Amino acid sequence: MGNVKKFVEEITSMDVDFAQWYTDVVKKADLVDYSSVRGSMIIRPHGYAIWENVRDVLDAKIKETGHENVYLPLFIPESLLQKEKDHIEGFAPEVAWVTHGGSEELTERLCVRPTSEVLFCEHYANIIHSYRDLPKLYNQWSNVVRWEKTTRPFLRTLEFLWQEGHTCHATDEDAHEETKKMLEVYASVCEEYLAIPVLKGQKTEKEKFAGAKFTYTIESLMHDGKALQTGTSHHLGTGFAEAFGIQYTDRNGELQNVHQTSWGITTRLIGALIMVHGDNRGLVVPPRIAPTQVMIVPIAQHKPGVLDKAYELRDQLKKVARVGIDASDKMPGWKFNEYEMKGIPLRLEIGPKDIENGQAVLARRDTGEKVQVRLDELEARIVELLEEIQQNLLKKARELQASKTRTAVTMEQFKKELEQNPGFIKAMWCGDLACENFIKDETGATSRCIPFEQERVADTCVCCGGEAKELVYWAKAY
Amino acid sequence: MGNVKKFVEEITSMDVDFAQWYTDVVKKADLVDYSSVRGSMIIRPHGYAIWENVRDVLDAKIKETGHENVYLPLFIPESLLQKEKDHIEGFAPEVAWVTHGGSEELTERLCVRPTSEVLFCEHYANIIHSYRDLPKLYNQWSNVVRWEKTTRPFLRTLEFLWQEGHTCHATDEDAHEETKKMLEVYASVCEEYLAIPVLKGQKTEKEKFAGAKFTYTIESLMHDGKALQTGTSHHLGTGFAEAFGIQYTDRNGELQNVHQTSWGITTRLIGALIMVHGDNRGLVVPPRIAPTQVMIVPIAQHKPGVLDKAYELRDQLKKVARVGIDASDKMPGWKFNEYEMKGIPLRLEIGPKDIENGQAVLARRDTGEKVQVRLDELEARIVELLEEIQQNLLKKARELQASKTRTAVTMEQFKKELEQNPGFIKAMWCGDLACENFIKDETGATSRCIPFEQERVADTCVCCGGEAKELVYWAKAY
Repeated sequence: MGNVKKFVEEITSMDVDFAQWYTDVVKKADLVDYSSVRGSMIIRPHGYAIWENVRDVLDAKIKETGHENVYLPLFIPESLLQKEKDHIEGFAPEVAWVTHGGSEELTERLCVRPTSEVLFCEHYANIIHSYRDLPKLYNQWSNVVRWEKTTRPFLRTLEFLWQEGHTCHATDEDAHEETKKMLEVYASVCEEYLAIPVLKGQKTEKEKFAGAKFTYTIESLMHDGKALQTGTSHHLGTGFAEAFGIQYTDRNGELQNVHQTSWGITTRLIGALIMVHGDNRGLVVPPRIAPTQVMIVPIAQHKPGVLDKAYELRDQLKKVARVGIDASDKMPGWKFNEYEMKGIPLRLEIGPKDIENGQAVLARRDTGEKVQVRLDELEARIVELLEEIQQNLLKKARELQASKTRTAVTMEQFKKELEQNPGFIKAMWCGDLACENFIKDETGATSRCIPFEQERVADTCVCCGGEAKELVYWAKAY
Repeated sequence: MGNVKKFVEEITSMDVDFAQWYTDVVKKADLVDYSSVRGSMIIRPHGYAIWENVRDVLDAKIKETGHENVYLPLFIPESLLQKEKDHIEGFAPEVAWVTHGGSEELTERLCVRPTSEVLFCEHYANIIHSYRDLPKLYNQWSNVVRWEKTTRPFLRTLEFLWQEGHTCHATDEDAHEETKKMLEVYASVCEEYLAIPVLKGQKTEKEKFAGAKFTYTIESLMHDGKALQTGTSHHLGTGFAEAFGIQYTDRNGELQNVHQTSWGITTRLIGALIMVHGDNRGLVVPPRIAPTQVMIVPIAQHKPGVLDKAYELRDQLKKVARVGIDASDKMPGWKFNEYEMKGIPLRLEIGPKDIENGQAVLARRDTGEKVQVRLDELEARIVELLEEIQQNLLKKARELQASKTRTAVTMEQFKKELEQNPGFIKAMWCGDLACENFIKDETGATSRCIPFEQERVADTCVCCGGEAKELVYWAKAY
């Protein structure tokens, strides 16, 4: 194996340059390619297959919780976008405008949806009349566009894929319940499938969604100590209902505004996956969402019986896992590196000696461990190992997050902690926007959320020394 | 049941006004709603669930045949679109142009993809180098936009959903093989799942895809005798490869152009479904793609035990079919009409008398037949009936198509047949564009395809009387 190195396309070490490491991984693991469309990405088969798995898992949960999928138009007339004041103020600077159809200039510009609240609202005003029509629980899988200046694959792109849930309820409490429920759904997809631990909480007024009453968020910590917002769920209150006239007749025959929510997760989750689990050998994909869970690499495959056995194992193991095989004429060393780069959870090696001994070798991507397994125990062992890897990834990610979460009671401490070991800073806040802005200007860290699980780590605001209102998690963020 | 009528929202009879019948069905069966976005539609839960089923069936077949899903950008820079001359000429008149991002005017306009050949070509030029990289078999599920003047839900909309396959091959033969294979996949989805019979053939030069070497098509006949193109598969030859420099080194070390294909089906299929199977009571959905296959309607549900039994049946029948239940306080008569309008294949009625007799009533949507079935035979009978309905719908659609397919050997005959019984006209053609144009101008019928199964119904061209080259199917079309 001495000459494996020359087959390996080296990637930058994450300790040397994390941003370059990220760029190397997305490219070398064949997740994306670039095109001549500025700020957009091509999601390649390996990247898209991961997204399909995330989508299928989440879609099933969205349906289980009573939601229905719909599809609304890509374009939004300018006048419609302007109906809700806070909303248009938030989004106008970052939308793409269609001004011509064929060779004709349009009488009204159309924006390419940055999100679809206003379209859903117009539709809801059409179809909701009575309390019998509530709740309306809709979801949409779609592409959206936001005119970003600086872009990075998965993390911030001009166009991205997402789902956006939009619901209408009879009461504020029902809408609140929904907002919480969908945040829990997101948290469970992140933790149980992507093995990404999340911090649940509420956004500050400054950081909430444009037009919302309040925003719930889940936040995760990346390997470099920066935070990433992995999902948000907004209680929209009645602001949109008032602007769009979405009213229903209640049981007493009186007209009422509906109470709304919206919630979304995006292809950013793949960025989180890379930065939470990846290492200097490339991507690491948790088994539950890995498109290929076991990659079979035949050893000395020109020798009689090896390829036959490898294919036989592939067919046999299909029952218990998503199995691939690479029977190309490339060197095993090249293949090892290729599938480590792509983050396949388990590699199965089978060669003439293994066949003689009635065994195969299983190599774990997460720990690098190799074990010899008897062929008649292979199915059971693979099922066990995949589960072990899944749990180990979550455990390691939890430890990472814990090790990068510090408490600060003064601004000196805040800055020192953030510099020495970037991550979450837990610090008390007086609730004043001025302090939130000051902290951002001074340190680069933003308020990530007011966590649901509150602690009182001090009695005074970390910034102004005034009376502490609540605990906030702060971090530099993607 | 004498007062059922007042609950029914009447739809126009298809014999009185087919276009209005269509519009009534898409609206009353809750397939679509309109919005303030001209020419676009909102696909409502019932419509989208049908699309999801079509998508899942086709996606599985696309993957089984070795294709991988990817996702490419929504926007195409104007200069990129212009690289292949025939292609831009075909599409330029019908694209939407983005000219501004936020408040900035762009230095180069971006078109919203009408189809993604040029983006795939740019990507392929990046990633294909050697014969080892071939074939590349990619597919994309996406939305596309074409700036249509006159629009109708599902049939012709500014924006529609589709899949577009794009493949590269080492030889012309391989590309040809792929073009045929994917047409067969489309034909099998239409016939086996949507119960829509198709006619397979090749488009004339005039009707082929802009930039293709040739186009294969499947064509279906609607209830009103108009044809609808249900899917196309294009052999692109090497035209795009030359324009975009997609070359590979062959086994002899020589540079070669790749040979390409592209193929697509769209949400139009739902339009076809409506117009092939629908009747004056509304939509009829074939069981294999029906989101709900059996709708349970409790009778006298206020009586003790009825609802319990209905839910018990729902849970029991879930094993064998996609089952819904309507336990709302609406009248059974209202429910009967609602689910007939929505085209649910089977209705299950269960009331106090049925329970007493240990039976339930099954009503078929396709024939209107009602049968009493013993509860212990229900599962088996439902499975049988769903299959019978599926086969019956295909059979009826085949009969419709046969009854509306006529032969003409003179233009007088052509016009008379088309007028008296609109449908496919089989007629010989000399191969001359002038005749094709004349027929269109004179009759409104276009060449639908040169069928793979050729017959020689005359020796002379139906139009000019010159030597007949081949049989063509002609029809007025959507």
